[in-house]
Amino acid sequence: MQLTRAADYGVRVMVYLATIAQTERALLPELAEATDAPESFLSKVLQALTRADLISSRRGRFGGFAIRPKGRAASMFQVIEAVDGPICLNVCLSAERGCRRSSWCPAHPVWARAQQAMLNVLKQVSVAELAAQSTPGHSHNSNLVTFAPMRGR
Amino acid sequence: MQLTRAADYGVRVMVYLATIAQTERALLPELAEATDAPESFLSKVLQALTRADLISSRRGRFGGFAIRPKGRAASMFQVIEAVDGPICLNVCLSAERGCRRSSWCPAHPVWARAQQAMLNVLKQVSVAELAAQSTPGHSHNSNLVTFAPMRGR
Repeated sequence: MQLTRAADYGVRVMVYLATIAQTERALLPELAEATDAPESFLSKVLQALTRADLISSRRGRFGGFAIRPKGRAASMFQVIEAVDGPICLNVCLSAERGCRRSSWCPAHPVWARAQQAMLNVLKQVSVAELAAQSTPGHSHNSNLVTFAPMRGR
Repeated sequence: MQLTRAADYGVRVMVYLATIAQTERALLPELAEATDAPESFLSKVLQALTRADLISSRRGRFGGFAIRPKGRAASMFQVIEAVDGPICLNVCLSAERGCRRSSWCPAHPVWARAQQAMLNVLKQVSVAELAAQSTPGHSHNSNLVTFAPMRGR
């Protein structure tokens, strides 16, 4: 029972992006360094976060990744789901697949309670709150790309 | 983030064994049917539960699997750990591997709280309590082997 590395990196990268100035964008190598993630792997995580509208991605000279207001307000739970899809502590809790034992299995409601207890914690903390607790020396470095808004877009 | 199938079957088989009479032992085919698990896979789960002294295994004509008192008193948490080893919601919480970011990463204490909230639920429920809630028609069938104690052992 373990979170995927992708979701872990997803949380790391969101927190990092929330600590940089709103006028800045970060490039992949910088994000990979900040999150201790391999670039190729992190790239897929960033795609998922972009699809979920938690971050924006822009190509070109002034391109890079930036957090969206929705991403700043997102909970850890929302970041994890954006990367991994629905969280399901035990396969028996899958809304999609269901479990034919669920109507009588005495363990089923316990799994559900355990999952809910875990999710309640992950839902209570936002990316912005995590970023506010970041130690500056570890959450920020100097290799930032200054974000110049692109006219007409 | 999902429990292994092995741990899920471990909980199922423990609950089933706790519902049969204390003088009875169950054979692998019966346990596989009761837990909806493939026999070969369940066999490994039963080995792990035996190693953890939660159940006993006996060969021969009057052989089979039976729950030990320690297994009846075990929590869901203990059953899962007996099968899967230490539960670790995120790799950063691994006591063995550690995480070099843990001293400053703002997500680390949240992962720890989420894991603790989940474990608290799983620690509060024992196998015996789950078995007491089992629906008789689903937790018991008639293919039981009567357990005859073996003298001199």
